[in-house]
Amino acid sequence: MSGVNTVALARRLADVRRQSMALAEGLSAEDCQLQSMDDASPVKWHLAHTTWFFETFVLDGQAGYRAFDERYRVLFNSYYVGVGERFARPQRGLLSRPSLDDVMAYRRHVDEALAQALRRGPTPRQAELLTLGLHHEQQHQELILTDLLHHFSVNPLAPAYRPAAAVASSPPRPMRFVDHAGGAVEIGAEATGFAFDNERPRHTVWLAPYALADRLVTEGEYLAFVEDGGYREPRWWLSDGWDAVQRLGWRAPLYWREEAAGVWRRFGLLGLQPLRTDAPVCHVSYYEADAYARWAGARLPTEAEWEHAAIVALAEGRAATGTLLEDGRFAPQPARPVADGGLAQLPGDCWQWTASAYLPYPGFRTDEGAVGEYNGKFMVNQMVLRGGSCATPRSHWRASYRNFFPAGARWQFSGVRLAR
Amino acid sequence: MSGVNTVALARRLADVRRQSMALAEGLSAEDCQLQSMDDASPVKWHLAHTTWFFETFVLDGQAGYRAFDERYRVLFNSYYVGVGERFARPQRGLLSRPSLDDVMAYRRHVDEALAQALRRGPTPRQAELLTLGLHHEQQHQELILTDLLHHFSVNPLAPAYRPAAAVASSPPRPMRFVDHAGGAVEIGAEATGFAFDNERPRHTVWLAPYALADRLVTEGEYLAFVEDGGYREPRWWLSDGWDAVQRLGWRAPLYWREEAAGVWRRFGLLGLQPLRTDAPVCHVSYYEADAYARWAGARLPTEAEWEHAAIVALAEGRAATGTLLEDGRFAPQPARPVADGGLAQLPGDCWQWTASAYLPYPGFRTDEGAVGEYNGKFMVNQMVLRGGSCATPRSHWRASYRNFFPAGARWQFSGVRLAR
Amino acid sequence: MSGVNTVALARRLADVRRQSMALAEGLSAEDCQLQSMDDASPVKWHLAHTTWFFETFVLDGQAGYRAFDERYRVLFNSYYVGVGERFARPQRGLLSRPSLDDVMAYRRHVDEALAQALRRGPTPRQAELLTLGLHHEQQHQELILTDLLHHFSVNPLAPAYRPAAAVASSPPRPMRFVDHAGGAVEIGAEATGFAFDNERPRHTVWLAPYALADRLVTEGEYLAFVEDGGYREPRWWLSDGWDAVQRLGWRAPLYWREEAAGVWRRFGLLGLQPLRTDAPVCHVSYYEADAYARWAGARLPTEAEWEHAAIVALAEGRAATGTLLEDGRFAPQPARPVADGGLAQLPGDCWQWTASAYLPYPGFRTDEGAVGEYNGKFMVNQMVLRGGSCATPRSHWRASYRNFFPAGARWQFSGVRLAR
Amino acid sequence: MSGVNTVALARRLADVRRQSMALAEGLSAEDCQLQSMDDASPVKWHLAHTTWFFETFVLDGQAGYRAFDERYRVLFNSYYVGVGERFARPQRGLLSRPSLDDVMAYRRHVDEALAQALRRGPTPRQAELLTLGLHHEQQHQELILTDLLHHFSVNPLAPAYRPAAAVASSPPRPMRFVDHAGGAVEIGAEATGFAFDNERPRHTVWLAPYALADRLVTEGEYLAFVEDGGYREPRWWLSDGWDAVQRLGWRAPLYWREEAAGVWRRFGLLGLQPLRTDAPVCHVSYYEADAYARWAGARLPTEAEWEHAAIVALAEGRAATGTLLEDGRFAPQPARPVADGGLAQLPGDCWQWTASAYLPYPGFRTDEGAVGEYNGKFMVNQMVLRGGSCATPRSHWRASYRNFFPAGARWQFSGVRLAR
Repeated sequence: MSGVNTVALARRLADVRRQSMALAEGLSAEDCQLQSMDDASPVKWHLAHTTWFFETFVLDGQAGYRAFDERYRVLFNSYYVGVGERFARPQRGLLSRPSLDDVMAYRRHVDEALAQALRRGPTPRQAELLTLGLHHEQQHQELILTDLLHHFSVNPLAPAYRPAAAVASSPPRPMRFVDHAGGAVEIGAEATGFAFDNERPRHTVWLAPYALADRLVTEGEYLAFVEDGGYREPRWWLSDGWDAVQRLGWRAPLYWREEAAGVWRRFGLLGLQPLRTDAPVCHVSYYEADAYARWAGARLPTEAEWEHAAIVALAEGRAATGTLLEDGRFAPQPARPVADGGLAQLPGDCWQWTASAYLPYPGFRTDEGAVGEYNGKFMVNQMVLRGGSCATPRSHWRASYRNFFPAGARWQFSGVRLAR
Repeated sequence: MSGVNTVALARRLADVRRQSMALAEGLSAEDCQLQSMDDASPVKWHLAHTTWFFETFVLDGQAGYRAFDERYRVLFNSYYVGVGERFARPQRGLLSRPSLDDVMAYRRHVDEALAQALRRGPTPRQAELLTLGLHHEQQHQELILTDLLHHFSVNPLAPAYRPAAAVASSPPRPMRFVDHAGGAVEIGAEATGFAFDNERPRHTVWLAPYALADRLVTEGEYLAFVEDGGYREPRWWLSDGWDAVQRLGWRAPLYWREEAAGVWRRFGLLGLQPLRTDAPVCHVSYYEADAYARWAGARLPTEAEWEHAAIVALAEGRAATGTLLEDGRFAPQPARPVADGGLAQLPGDCWQWTASAYLPYPGFRTDEGAVGEYNGKFMVNQMVLRGGSCATPRSHWRASYRNFFPAGARWQFSGVRLAR
Repeated sequence: MSGVNTVALARRLADVRRQSMALAEGLSAEDCQLQSMDDASPVKWHLAHTTWFFETFVLDGQAGYRAFDERYRVLFNSYYVGVGERFARPQRGLLSRPSLDDVMAYRRHVDEALAQALRRGPTPRQAELLTLGLHHEQQHQELILTDLLHHFSVNPLAPAYRPAAAVASSPPRPMRFVDHAGGAVEIGAEATGFAFDNERPRHTVWLAPYALADRLVTEGEYLAFVEDGGYREPRWWLSDGWDAVQRLGWRAPLYWREEAAGVWRRFGLLGLQPLRTDAPVCHVSYYEADAYARWAGARLPTEAEWEHAAIVALAEGRAATGTLLEDGRFAPQPARPVADGGLAQLPGDCWQWTASAYLPYPGFRTDEGAVGEYNGKFMVNQMVLRGGSCATPRSHWRASYRNFFPAGARWQFSGVRLAR
Repeated sequence: MSGVNTVALARRLADVRRQSMALAEGLSAEDCQLQSMDDASPVKWHLAHTTWFFETFVLDGQAGYRAFDERYRVLFNSYYVGVGERFARPQRGLLSRPSLDDVMAYRRHVDEALAQALRRGPTPRQAELLTLGLHHEQQHQELILTDLLHHFSVNPLAPAYRPAAAVASSPPRPMRFVDHAGGAVEIGAEATGFAFDNERPRHTVWLAPYALADRLVTEGEYLAFVEDGGYREPRWWLSDGWDAVQRLGWRAPLYWREEAAGVWRRFGLLGLQPLRTDAPVCHVSYYEADAYARWAGARLPTEAEWEHAAIVALAEGRAATGTLLEDGRFAPQPARPVADGGLAQLPGDCWQWTASAYLPYPGFRTDEGAVGEYNGKFMVNQMVLRGGSCATPRSHWRASYRNFFPAGARWQFSGVRLAR
């Protein structure tokens, strides 16, 4: 088949698959089995499920392919109803068998079959699904880190994934707002090139004039909200948010710990660390992001505002990238300098909650078959995040990328960019 | 004070207050105390709370006003945190004291004080709050019926609010779709005249070309979905919707009862009645509306599409009204005939789920003070409904009106209008 | 039929039925519909269910008897699986229909049919079931008060069932312990005379030497436990009890309210009242009774110890009765004087938690038919209480009477008698 | 110090500690971390907690003892409130650190310190606590197997702890009842020799004449109950039991799986196996044992009946032992032949539910200090089991031994012996 660059695809496949293994380095089989809550899966499960995805959508039915273990079809299906039964999500941490070693052998088995398929020359549909599988695995690479941080957070020993010394912090540079005139603009992915179905079709939206902050809100700024009694004052909060604050006893972002009165530390992949006045606040819910914005006399941007500003900044060379997975720093970092009128942390450091609910674009169509369950069926009760984080693979990001989580979710690398 | 037509306001006040009493006619004190679920309040509570609203926001602090009973401030506050404590919502059905008679006396006490205030001439702010109080009470008139239906539905005796004989049904007229060209259009309430804060400001949105069904989906059409196995087939459903179907055992709209295999009856304010092929299906959740639309090869309209089509139809005289509260029929009725290219049931019969999440319009501002808690703090995790129902007072409705409920809510008079 | 004294039975029937009506005096239909928790039923339901019991077990199947309303069979069945379906217990408060008036008519209908049956001369089995029905209704008379107190307790207006002025309290007389030698003794009801099946058969138990307190623990004594930090110190508590303390936030007996630091009032059928140093503490769970006993260096008696001591005291005329329902005081009262070595509050004022689990006596046999579900099927996970309370009808009590509730139950009139 | 045989104690210590290690053989670190429900702990936790017990009660405070890791004090405390904080029980499966290797090193560290202490000559109190620690560890040896079976049972791969071939089954020998005359008898542990505090003091009880089955109920006999609709018929069940059946969907003993209509297999430590007509039924709750007994026209014995019969049979040489842990068969086995009038499976194969609630014996006293939390504080809401199982160490068993679990517990090796 002509249109596919098989060599490039094979190299990219090898790179992405290798990266997953690299993330698991230094983790024991016990670490990889942890499941601290229903929403977060064990590392072992992520390593197996991404492999299952390739096996199910690319290899199954192909001449000569023999499944590694028929029983894995149910064990490592996540939510694809069209593919059949699934093992209950909250019990993923209860699978001591297959062992981590078994899962590694499974990965090798599927890697070899994929390599062979690529050597034989894939059909265009296979190449398409392989590419989807790569992006799917990159999504799970972010989840491997996100989930592991939560798993470790319940251990009183506070294990560090990648131990690091604390860094002295300095005041952040002032936050500035970049103006946009609005009007009829286009957002969404172009018809060609890889994108998830939920990023399409490209379409027109009408924007009122707006301004977007040129960097994320910092831990120091957020601490001022905490110290001002932000978590005790209902007027800053949406009703559901205030309910969460009271029901769940929220007093600060998810991984902040008050070790003495007014003395906070933050648990992260680098271990327990002091707060940094200049690093972006992370692991806040939509409710907290929204409450902070109201307290600060601002608001959260819509996803269309965010994407339009990003397109403009990228086109004009006024966008600075923040920390992404390849930087190997595994924690949000202070914003890098950016030209006047530019936007820092675009993408990078933290996902940024938007004021937009996750809904289909006008004319949205899901993919055919079980793969079509990828995005569309989640389009209710979630808010969109934009931007990417320190756990997002660089090659996985696009300006049109739509991430989405329920308004109360805090275990993602999620932060705050203000708008007016 | 000059701008307020005090006489008209006084008459409207008397009308609205009298209408609430009319709704309670025929109900015993026991009926008025029922609370069948946390979300639905007793009729007695609605009668008291609407009165509390006038007392708190209009009368309190006014020279010479003496509260009827100081303890009612807490008992009949709904969710206004700024006003102070509230009595727990799920326990509203546990207040045998004050009695229904006491609440009636409370209503008279406040009515007299309001009349006096009107005679003395209200300030513009008071007139504004009185008007808000009237619309607030009209909202609760709808809830009185909506909630009462739920309270009665758990009683095996299936009591009828307004008993009525069954009516023979006939096939509905064919559903037609009315086309719209889209582009930049304006929606939202004008700056003058009464509207809730969430309907403002009027603003521009961009619409892709679309078509809207000229009537609501009927019970007969929905029954075909049920009989086609719609509730057993995950592919029609959003993930959260499928979860609700399985967790809650949904097999049909909320008040449908299968009395023998394939033989359904519907419980309503008129009692237990056979289904009607030509009456609109009612008491479905957003999940069901969305699943039905997908099964029918269509989709739900956005609220902007709905409002724009309504504005056009009203302007061109091609809109037909459905059953509203004043019609005194208390149940959705078959669509009345409408001119070609016109829209029936606009408003009326059933609220119509839209594909839009309930979010602030660009430039949204809440009212000052505790009254500002009216709408804004609920702008997350809900979907917008448009249109009004057989329980909605006619004078309460506007084309810009935004109703909103969580996607799983079924006890409202909520139905389905399709779009493409 | 010869053995039954029909006239006496008819008079007793009229008395007991009249007493239920007397208890409902002064209550509105709204009061009688309240249900504040799953375990506590509405007064209206008690009035109907006791009537249902006579209808089902005495009248049904009798020539010429016509049911008042066939639908009541399901509505007012409590837990008799053998009789058929039941209406869900937690929803008893949701039956506005039948109204209280309807239930009163139902009572009259059944009363007349019972009177007629008695005039015709009942069979021995009918007389037996009538007698059982009387005792059943007397049990529900106690529950009418017990449950109503709970229903009223959630109302911030703190309504009094029988308002009364506060009474000055004085120190209680010293608590003395009455010694018993133990050995092989007999407990349980004799084979003749009315008793519930769970009181039989009479049988031998072996008792070690023991001593029983001659009066109940007072509010003043219990307050000392509270003030000594009793609810903050795990060592006094059973593990399940300590769990309840923490999970439910217990800090004092159920109806005590700390109105200012260290200033307590008790809610009761007489309204909100100050504590009394000399009145018995009431509305404590088994956990609290047990923890108090441990703190006081004593223990709770077993039911065999209690019954044996009661038999001896009664036989020797050294037992004093406490307040029972006929006294019309509706609240536990200070112990009346009693002869040296005698036992006060035997029965009366409060039920007394024993250290015995509720289990069948050796050779226990249930009654035949659905009536056999009366007691036996509850013989697990409950503790026995002995003694009777201010809400217990005097003619309902026997020394062999076994009351039983789960260890965490607090809404009964339950207090503490110590043993050593 | 003179009274303690230090050499024997050292040898016994080594044996017991070695046995725990033997149980973990063949298990991976992943297996040892599994926690499938709150009540069941990971193998790794059991290995650590038994070690913590020796460290806390024997070594701490001893001159020269250095804790292996101070943080283990909290991590591996089970429920000893007197010792300080504990790590939340449901989260024991979330401790990937310390690793299994770390826990093994912890065991060696404590073993060496204990050996040294024994060489130095322990005080009588130390020897007493060492002996208590040994019995404590033996209890946890049983739990290691009991809990592991549950952990493995949720894995669809149905892993076998010790794989074994299926064995052909044959009809069991007829069940006979051994008569006892009753009267005043003594039960409970003698004042000397090791026993848990809950087995003391020895005391008199009065027994009515009774008869005890000479073997346990078999899987074949229990299957007849299942096939007779036992789980669909409320009249056999206690009310709480019937509630459990319906709420939890019970249709057979815990680990039975119906693989086709009427074809059952049982999951166990030997893997998935066909039922055996002659092997005792296991993993039933008290509710099921009680319902079976009622269906079979019998009842469960009280613990006094059981113990008295055991004492007599042992004294007269008419008791046969069943399978115990040392037999290394890890599953209940058919009863071995026993002399006429003798009792098989006494102890062994399965724990046997009694009709007795777990309560203190007359004159019961807890141990001093935190060790006193061992038994007494659990004396409510539990039923006593007698006998020992295939997972019980032989040297751990005594005729006076009282095991106890809530009536709904099924994951223990619990079966049924009938009485009349």
